[in-house]
Amino acid sequence: MNSLLKSVFRKLPNLNKFNYSRVISRSCFQQDRERNDGNRQNHYWKTSIMFGSALSGVFVYYFYIKDRHKLICSSLLDLSENGNVIGPGIFRNDLPTYTLAEVNNHSTKDTKIWVTYKEGVYDITDFIEGHPGGEQILMAAGSSVEPFWLIYGIHENPHVYEILETLRIGNLNRDDQKELSIENMNDPYAKEPRRHTALKPASVKPFNAELSPQLLCENFLTPNELFYVRNHLPVPEIDVDTYELEIEVEDKSKILTFTLDELKKFPKHTITATIMCAGNRRSEMTKVKPVKGLSWGPGAIGTAQWTGVRLRDVLKLAGVTDDEERLKHVQFEGIDFDATSKQYGASIPLWKAVDKRGDVILAYEMNGVPIPRDHGYPVRVIVPGIVGARNVKWLGKIYVSESESSSHWQQNDYKGFSPCVDWDTVDFTKSPAIQELPVISAICRPLEGDKIHVEDGFINVKGYAWSGGGQKIVRVDVTIDGGKTWQVANFDAQDSAPPPRHWAWTLWSIKIPVNNELNEVEIWAKATDSSYNTQPENFENIWNLRGVLSNAYHKVKVKLIH
Amino acid sequence: MNSLLKSVFRKLPNLNKFNYSRVISRSCFQQDRERNDGNRQNHYWKTSIMFGSALSGVFVYYFYIKDRHKLICSSLLDLSENGNVIGPGIFRNDLPTYTLAEVNNHSTKDTKIWVTYKEGVYDITDFIEGHPGGEQILMAAGSSVEPFWLIYGIHENPHVYEILETLRIGNLNRDDQKELSIENMNDPYAKEPRRHTALKPASVKPFNAELSPQLLCENFLTPNELFYVRNHLPVPEIDVDTYELEIEVEDKSKILTFTLDELKKFPKHTITATIMCAGNRRSEMTKVKPVKGLSWGPGAIGTAQWTGVRLRDVLKLAGVTDDEERLKHVQFEGIDFDATSKQYGASIPLWKAVDKRGDVILAYEMNGVPIPRDHGYPVRVIVPGIVGARNVKWLGKIYVSESESSSHWQQNDYKGFSPCVDWDTVDFTKSPAIQELPVISAICRPLEGDKIHVEDGFINVKGYAWSGGGQKIVRVDVTIDGGKTWQVANFDAQDSAPPPRHWAWTLWSIKIPVNNELNEVEIWAKATDSSYNTQPENFENIWNLRGVLSNAYHKVKVKLIH
Repeated sequence: MNSLLKSVFRKLPNLNKFNYSRVISRSCFQQDRERNDGNRQNHYWKTSIMFGSALSGVFVYYFYIKDRHKLICSSLLDLSENGNVIGPGIFRNDLPTYTLAEVNNHSTKDTKIWVTYKEGVYDITDFIEGHPGGEQILMAAGSSVEPFWLIYGIHENPHVYEILETLRIGNLNRDDQKELSIENMNDPYAKEPRRHTALKPASVKPFNAELSPQLLCENFLTPNELFYVRNHLPVPEIDVDTYELEIEVEDKSKILTFTLDELKKFPKHTITATIMCAGNRRSEMTKVKPVKGLSWGPGAIGTAQWTGVRLRDVLKLAGVTDDEERLKHVQFEGIDFDATSKQYGASIPLWKAVDKRGDVILAYEMNGVPIPRDHGYPVRVIVPGIVGARNVKWLGKIYVSESESSSHWQQNDYKGFSPCVDWDTVDFTKSPAIQELPVISAICRPLEGDKIHVEDGFINVKGYAWSGGGQKIVRVDVTIDGGKTWQVANFDAQDSAPPPRHWAWTLWSIKIPVNNELNEVEIWAKATDSSYNTQPENFENIWNLRGVLSNAYHKVKVKLIH
Repeated sequence: MNSLLKSVFRKLPNLNKFNYSRVISRSCFQQDRERNDGNRQNHYWKTSIMFGSALSGVFVYYFYIKDRHKLICSSLLDLSENGNVIGPGIFRNDLPTYTLAEVNNHSTKDTKIWVTYKEGVYDITDFIEGHPGGEQILMAAGSSVEPFWLIYGIHENPHVYEILETLRIGNLNRDDQKELSIENMNDPYAKEPRRHTALKPASVKPFNAELSPQLLCENFLTPNELFYVRNHLPVPEIDVDTYELEIEVEDKSKILTFTLDELKKFPKHTITATIMCAGNRRSEMTKVKPVKGLSWGPGAIGTAQWTGVRLRDVLKLAGVTDDEERLKHVQFEGIDFDATSKQYGASIPLWKAVDKRGDVILAYEMNGVPIPRDHGYPVRVIVPGIVGARNVKWLGKIYVSESESSSHWQQNDYKGFSPCVDWDTVDFTKSPAIQELPVISAICRPLEGDKIHVEDGFINVKGYAWSGGGQKIVRVDVTIDGGKTWQVANFDAQDSAPPPRHWAWTLWSIKIPVNNELNEVEIWAKATDSSYNTQPENFENIWNLRGVLSNAYHKVKVKLIH
């Protein structure tokens, strides 16, 4: 990545996706699904083109002009220091006005690339070279960026406005502006499911939310309505009567399809598994040095009973067994689409899918009821022990292949890096995609800053611990004196399955004696799993630019009331 | 355990075994092997009785008189503070003299239990109650402890002498003393294999030794002669022509036996695997607070190509397949015997043995030649990714069972504990036996205290990293400023096998720029594996009374020569 672009990127919070181009409405998607005849890829491409002109725009996350680095920086500073941050797209008397037809004519490098936002017209030509998404940006040339901001609500951010305005060259004719305004577009988030108010959003569009830790550790099985939500894109509306899951194997012409009823004919299998986002507890790592990603507390985790069919049973029917040697990966495609009509995608190593102890299931029930829309209705893959990002929701297609998924989320996200790697030096090809997660724990009660009562000389502490890869938690140690003395917590709830098929978290609690004279303590918790891996002590040495794998000791400072 | 006993135990370094009673010479074992007719257990028991009287004695690791706690402690202190540590068994004018016949008469609780050491006679009656090995001690009553000290050379220790002398009641008649002296006994270590002088012993009897780190990291495959040796007992002499491996399955009457030639008829399989002792790098943990165990540096690890037959192939013939549900463990018995004629033993979970990705093999070759005696000739089980202690050498028997091995090494050793657990509070039933090992790394060059040349502003650092459970090392980070800045090391050698079948270590190196003004730096290394587990930072918070799982950052302080 170019360094200036990355310096701009660093200014954007909660950002973990940068594929941007044309948007496709959900209704289009629905029509498309219905016409699906096995030639989906080509069909989607055509659909993209068809709807592209109506909804076209440029996704301007980071506006960068290579040769104007200092100019941009100083402009931004001026704008900020003066407190006069100019909102993007407001009519400016000092600039010329262009018609939409004129803007449309600036859609190639030869003619310069223009885009619009509200009443503003912008020349982004020199920005393209440094665009992380490469040539994709050209698909959106000559029209409005607004559809993209609908998909990625995260851009409602002063830094983006500032950068955008530095590229301003004119105003858009007001009549044309109306034609492009969002009122004339479908809001892809208009039909999101209703959410429980106990879920605290980390972002609204897409919806990402967690439960408060105090509630989280009350139940071994997290109620569906209170289960953390991690959506990368709008929740698709899926008609179960027309739903089909495709299974394709590389270099085999035959594609299998299954309706939900057909899937249900495979033997039913239930597992109890914890799913966790790679960014869980990111907000603590951010305190060391800012990172990019949703600001999760310790609640981006939950445990449920997942019921469905074994992926290995389904793959067997497609001719892929545990003896397969050539093919190495299973790719999953969601039915949720991004602005380029690309599905959410991820992959896991094939061995995990076909191994009899892998317990990968195509789940259609969550805690005994059909999976709610936010969690993947009607079918989601559950890959126990593996990072949430590979547990693809709204599963539309399974593709068995030699290589792993080429998706953004597999290749350029959800990877760990050394603390020395920053946005100037990062090379995503150098780290493997996160699969199994390391051991983690969190204190759920009390919370940071709480005032807690000392009862008979003791304070009560509780929390959870979990480890990926089918490892079981074997011990949780707690200290209130910085590690001088430790105590071993009691396990309040733990699944009986032994490793390597122990998929669920452990809930723990402990009564800790406190000295009468103490007014404040910092409680630390660390877990050890059945491979005797344990948590690192501090975030400083595991810091990474994406803020994933935040599994240092959980440290909570509280005031004591005697 | 009784607290005083444990306080005594704490004084004993390098101790990791406390089964003590009668000794059986290797020649007995050989005769026994030859007579082996499938009823081996009973036969060994008879053999034990037969030779017991000739070699009887009491294994007096920890002399404890419950009611004389303070007396003993103060005596020890006096002895130590005066600098007058009295060697055990020296003739004392102030005490009466007894004949061996008299000593022999004190072999039950009713008559008091006496033992001898050299010219000393000791009453250990009150010690028995707190004896970790329970009633086994009675088998050795009324005679000399010396045969046991031959087996466990580790007792040549001032603390043991001191404790022993506090129980002193008399002298042994000099003629009788000669009869019991070690010159008249078989030294079970008399026929140990010749070892390379490059192996630095951590203990001689049994033989335990490691290679210097500088040599260790020179080869991806460790030469057999330089491979660390971890023996718990004398190396057995095994005649390959009469060697047989027994396979027994719980609740099945049929016992299978295989000669080496018969074993070799199964398909041949080679894996490259690192084997590591659970106590590797223990000497660093000891600096925080003393622990019990051999004082290993970072060299109790090695990598070899192991060739043999898959255990799953052999078990299949015994009727145990990957579909087995009732039986859960595979126990391994060595042909090496302890003083009670008990074999070395350990077990692993059955799934690991039958899983097609488990890669457990009955190895008869190490780096292309028959396994050397020190490493398990003629057959050793290799359980890749699992702690060395389960990779049983001189394999005599395999037993598939519902429960894990009842051996000392499985039940009361090789387990991890919280830093808060000491010898007064330890409960070995509360921790699982170590199987998969956590991620570890070590700096092999330079070593602590080295004076190293700065070349063109850089210093060169190299080492190894490894993780259990088939995880692959994905990154090694190195810092010389306490973690303020990190650098990513280069991988010089790494096996190509992907997880979960990546069994071998990774050799790494790095050139680190150093400031001209620095005269001393502390180099830290930490590794991250494919589950993104990483090492804990310090030993303080992972300290455990047995000093196992010593996988904190490796920190090496060196002087710089500019």
